Amino acid sequence: MSFNSFGHIFRITTWGESHGPALGVVIDGCPPGIPLEAAEIQTALDKRKPGTSKFVTQRKEPDMVKILSGVFEDDRIKKEFGGPVTTGAPISLEIENVDQRSKDYTDIRDKYRPGHADYTYDAKYGLRDYRGGGRSSARETAARVAAGVVAEKALAQVLDSTVTIRACMVQMGADKIDRAAFDWSEIENNPFWCPDSAAAKRWESQLDAARKAGSSMGAVIEVVASGVPAGLGAPVYGKLDAELASAMMSINAAKGVEIGAGFEAAALSGENNADEIRMQNGKPHFLSNKAGGILGGISSGQDIVLRLAIKPTSSILTPRKTITRDGQETDIQTKGRHDPCVGIRGVPVANAMMALVLADHALLHRGQCG
Amino acid sequence: MSFNSFGHIFRITTWGESHGPALGVVIDGCPPGIPLEAAEIQTALDKRKPGTSKFVTQRKEPDMVKILSGVFEDDRIKKEFGGPVTTGAPISLEIENVDQRSKDYTDIRDKYRPGHADYTYDAKYGLRDYRGGGRSSARETAARVAAGVVAEKALAQVLDSTVTIRACMVQMGADKIDRAAFDWSEIENNPFWCPDSAAAKRWESQLDAARKAGSSMGAVIEVVASGVPAGLGAPVYGKLDAELASAMMSINAAKGVEIGAGFEAAALSGENNADEIRMQNGKPHFLSNKAGGILGGISSGQDIVLRLAIKPTSSILTPRKTITRDGQETDIQTKGRHDPCVGIRGVPVANAMMALVLADHALLHRGQCG
Amino acid sequence: MSFNSFGHIFRITTWGESHGPALGVVIDGCPPGIPLEAAEIQTALDKRKPGTSKFVTQRKEPDMVKILSGVFEDDRIKKEFGGPVTTGAPISLEIENVDQRSKDYTDIRDKYRPGHADYTYDAKYGLRDYRGGGRSSARETAARVAAGVVAEKALAQVLDSTVTIRACMVQMGADKIDRAAFDWSEIENNPFWCPDSAAAKRWESQLDAARKAGSSMGAVIEVVASGVPAGLGAPVYGKLDAELASAMMSINAAKGVEIGAGFEAAALSGENNADEIRMQNGKPHFLSNKAGGILGGISSGQDIVLRLAIKPTSSILTPRKTITRDGQETDIQTKGRHDPCVGIRGVPVANAMMALVLADHALLHRGQCG
Amino acid sequence: MSFNSFGHIFRITTWGESHGPALGVVIDGCPPGIPLEAAEIQTALDKRKPGTSKFVTQRKEPDMVKILSGVFEDDRIKKEFGGPVTTGAPISLEIENVDQRSKDYTDIRDKYRPGHADYTYDAKYGLRDYRGGGRSSARETAARVAAGVVAEKALAQVLDSTVTIRACMVQMGADKIDRAAFDWSEIENNPFWCPDSAAAKRWESQLDAARKAGSSMGAVIEVVASGVPAGLGAPVYGKLDAELASAMMSINAAKGVEIGAGFEAAALSGENNADEIRMQNGKPHFLSNKAGGILGGISSGQDIVLRLAIKPTSSILTPRKTITRDGQETDIQTKGRHDPCVGIRGVPVANAMMALVLADHALLHRGQCG
Repeated sequence: MSFNSFGHIFRITTWGESHGPALGVVIDGCPPGIPLEAAEIQTALDKRKPGTSKFVTQRKEPDMVKILSGVFEDDRIKKEFGGPVTTGAPISLEIENVDQRSKDYTDIRDKYRPGHADYTYDAKYGLRDYRGGGRSSARETAARVAAGVVAEKALAQVLDSTVTIRACMVQMGADKIDRAAFDWSEIENNPFWCPDSAAAKRWESQLDAARKAGSSMGAVIEVVASGVPAGLGAPVYGKLDAELASAMMSINAAKGVEIGAGFEAAALSGENNADEIRMQNGKPHFLSNKAGGILGGISSGQDIVLRLAIKPTSSILTPRKTITRDGQETDIQTKGRHDPCVGIRGVPVANAMMALVLADHALLHRGQCG
Repeated sequence: MSFNSFGHIFRITTWGESHGPALGVVIDGCPPGIPLEAAEIQTALDKRKPGTSKFVTQRKEPDMVKILSGVFEDDRIKKEFGGPVTTGAPISLEIENVDQRSKDYTDIRDKYRPGHADYTYDAKYGLRDYRGGGRSSARETAARVAAGVVAEKALAQVLDSTVTIRACMVQMGADKIDRAAFDWSEIENNPFWCPDSAAAKRWESQLDAARKAGSSMGAVIEVVASGVPAGLGAPVYGKLDAELASAMMSINAAKGVEIGAGFEAAALSGENNADEIRMQNGKPHFLSNKAGGILGGISSGQDIVLRLAIKPTSSILTPRKTITRDGQETDIQTKGRHDPCVGIRGVPVANAMMALVLADHALLHRGQCG
Repeated sequence: MSFNSFGHIFRITTWGESHGPALGVVIDGCPPGIPLEAAEIQTALDKRKPGTSKFVTQRKEPDMVKILSGVFEDDRIKKEFGGPVTTGAPISLEIENVDQRSKDYTDIRDKYRPGHADYTYDAKYGLRDYRGGGRSSARETAARVAAGVVAEKALAQVLDSTVTIRACMVQMGADKIDRAAFDWSEIENNPFWCPDSAAAKRWESQLDAARKAGSSMGAVIEVVASGVPAGLGAPVYGKLDAELASAMMSINAAKGVEIGAGFEAAALSGENNADEIRMQNGKPHFLSNKAGGILGGISSGQDIVLRLAIKPTSSILTPRKTITRDGQETDIQTKGRHDPCVGIRGVPVANAMMALVLADHALLHRGQCG
Repeated sequence: MSFNSFGHIFRITTWGESHGPALGVVIDGCPPGIPLEAAEIQTALDKRKPGTSKFVTQRKEPDMVKILSGVFEDDRIKKEFGGPVTTGAPISLEIENVDQRSKDYTDIRDKYRPGHADYTYDAKYGLRDYRGGGRSSARETAARVAAGVVAEKALAQVLDSTVTIRACMVQMGADKIDRAAFDWSEIENNPFWCPDSAAAKRWESQLDAARKAGSSMGAVIEVVASGVPAGLGAPVYGKLDAELASAMMSINAAKGVEIGAGFEAAALSGENNADEIRMQNGKPHFLSNKAGGILGGISSGQDIVLRLAIKPTSSILTPRKTITRDGQETDIQTKGRHDPCVGIRGVPVANAMMALVLADHALLHRGQCG
């Protein structure tokens, strides 16, 4: 049992604080023989990293990843695999923190920021590393994104087929995308991972206004995994739905998760909710996907579809009522560099968590372990 | 790792199929010295059991629970505790199945019921016990409710204070309760655990209509835990939100879960979302509860509030398109006794899962384990 | 985490006290499609059960096992498999206690028996079920033997080959068998599972003398698994040696475990200890087996060989110095029915634990999980 | 589940290969508020590190440890604790490898060294990092020793009392120490951690002879923990004996472990084996310690005493028969720098493993978790 670990067989353990010397992740249970180079992980980290647009924190972190263990190359391996491969030993990935701005932390040392974990960490531990949020900072998610890359590669090897995992933002504030305009190819064209170009335009001005006002906005992220074979997951407590819900709710600022029709399923009739089945090309073909690709906790072969609600960033410029560590009433106004919509950087993280859950269950499935 | 187990320290393992001879649960990690008698568990089971109104399955199960291990009484214990107490050894609870109606299962043996786990179980296991849904049946949840009683008692002992856990239905189909009319004392006055008497009346006729039409309805369940001290939970992957999400999504037919403001948090501004803090009676007092009692994965001392979406029962009388085990297209019409709204019986189950998560984390907190 | 559970993937959870109504085990993670009937488990239980000779406890327990879940049969399955098969759902096995002799427990209620767990259970839990030793009784091992049968069947299915697991007693008191006389076919010919008929004869009179004197004797058990393929186990903390050591030391009265040359390896030179390798029939062939079939924590394809030291039964008729629960000095003399050499009944238990470890690691290996 | 992790609540995960850039450990579950500085860990590492005498490998590793996360200091903490303290977040420790001698590995790349994990790693993974033994190298144990320091500090804090853990070598080759001459203060006076100065002298010439002959010797290590309160551990599968056996057998080259009288218990009568109890200073006082401080899997308050057999180093200069990766028969002669008796450096590792097990169970005990 470790609350800084995730996964059963393909299992990650992350460590590091926002303003410590480094952060990292140890990946255990990754199968051997998977080609892996730091450059591939770097590409994914670059997408998540801070400072890429005015809509994310201006902290400048290069997020350069080092692979410290678990991969090996010699002439024979180079010839067979084209480069270094995983060996089955734990893979240690490390990212240095370089832009921990030296500053005066007196304010957050003594006052609890509303919406943040300051008060609860003190309640649990009696003390806390408050610099930049310490362990509760979203900086921890860099480690998840790095591990997610390895998970996607392991998933492909284990299933011997390609699973396509994609994530996007489908709502910012109260403004939802137009489903008719949904286009995956749009998500790299705007700073929001928005699949609807018109919505992206609207969000740009809305978030700019919020940012300038020192406010922040929430978001809804959607993650879709295509190509997942039927049979992954487990009944009862290991339901794929439960695993994914746990994975997504472990992301900073997440407040809700739903699979398939989700909360809307409550309003459907039994007739409209249960996806009918036909045959197509010799395989089961569902006529709808209200279930979001999971039935009884086990994948059905349809797209796995989930959505995740992200609350607005709690760090805002408006002064808010709070108390001090010693129980005095006071006000606090957050300073420092922050994401006006933390949901944006949550998109690659949600993508990574889907990869981690699927890699884990693909391994379990292969061993018929579960 | 066991996918039929739930919890880290206070850990349950359930077993049993819908139409097997019995079902049960082994509870491990329950502290010693907790008074426990079968009658207390029975009271909770009686609330969940089938056949209590026309709105739940007509299967007649007395659901008589037996305690087979883990409790002990002698004269000294009787004198000190008033009756048998837990010993710290695993507690085995067993419930016999008595009303497994002997019938012809040919239909569901060969055809996959849309919305059910039939196809996915076959995809995972290659075969399945299809009688009454086998292991995927909601009958498994009787074991959860039984274990939940023990969890609530353990929770009270560990915290040395009372946590009140209550659950209710706040939406049936598309019809939500009136929050202004919310009254916990109403929930035992109607067959829906509805805290709004007017809504309960409306639901009665709606569900009756659905039932007569052979259809079914979904629901939203709300669970509230009051009196939970600050400091329970864990950062990162063991966030209390993540644990609760996993617990709730493991309930049959659950498709979504949200904490506090949940999906509505996405539409709030940072100012409106972060709960301000004042002092009251020498303790922190939050001016709102958008967070649902959890900040950074750790309880804040506020009420823990979550909601859970339950899809409409997949067993309906209208014929639906499906395929056979051998890949032939066909139709299926579910027969047998079913819940027109499985959300109703989900209420005590959601209540039990909250108790299980809290007991587990209260124990971890006591040992500063996590 | 559950201290009444064993195994990672093929995982058992046992419950029950010596004098409670029943005891049992839930087996989770057993693959589907394994033919399983109660009669097969019964055969193994009959070998371990009390009352079979004057050298084991005279308690009369029929140890009739019931399978309550996790197996299923219909016409199609009967035709394909010849009888009921596992479904992948948890298998619940239950054995009733019938000969809990109603008696006066005042003596062991108030006094701590030297060598028993009485004092330490009270130190840990504050109270204990002392009837027959409660949870600390070797009666729990009936559940292990039952689960071991399922493990052996799972192992054969997963490896698609036969692993032969055998256990015997190689020493009773200070008297060791003659290795030159070792003959597996002898073990069912004497009440000691002794592979050396001459030693068995000597032991008979030695143990009879000890029994009549109200004393007891220790033993060394040897377990050998043949046909285990190379590659099972894991490096570092999941070493097959470590898993087996944990399994064996969890058996009541075990005080030592060694693999291969074991403690004698300390006295060997590097030249004599490392097993040289040649080829034979196209496969690696080791010229000796000092390693006991495990190198670096992973099976080498040789026989896995371990030995296990069992202390003499602590229940003896000679009065011993002890203290009461309240800290008064006193004497105690154990009454009741006991095994003069608990090592005898430990033999099938050690056999079962080997099967459990191997089934678990065979599943992990198949999924390349670990 | 992670086979590179150890512990339930106080849980370590190690990573790194012998000739990779670094190795390290992530410690999760360490309570907050424990003063911790790198210098303390360094002191322990210096005792274990290579190159300190001619009796250990001549590899020159400074083994400088860095703390990368999980500790924090500000003015308030400095004032209260005197320096940086643990925060409850995972503690990442890292040690660079600096003396990975660049050399020709062709020999061990293609041939399996008898007694080493070469063949079994290939059997399990299909490939391996053979440089210096890769993951199977005893270099991994540096991470254990580092984590052991943190465990000892956590143990003292959790129990609010001092547990003294000491380890020594009691046998080298076939030569045992004289128990009458046992003196803990001797162990730092010789390169063997030997508590008998006369034996140490004998061992010096014996090992020198073995070293010059290119041979190697085995050893028996004894570990004693004094001051452990009664009540730590768990019945059944989590027996403290089983946990310790697993911990010790996970050490490289370990082939046997015994608690208290261990294998000699088999030869004792029931009268001589069960430790009688009297009162002393108001506390239970055992008249002997055959049990090694553990009864029924739970600590009794006596010294916990265990012994561990270490096989002779498999790397020797005498050519040995072996096979190549491709199944050709050949000879191999190990070159490179090696420990003539790997048991020597095993002493601090065994000490660390004892600390890890006790810290883990002390935390479990505090929470009454188990």
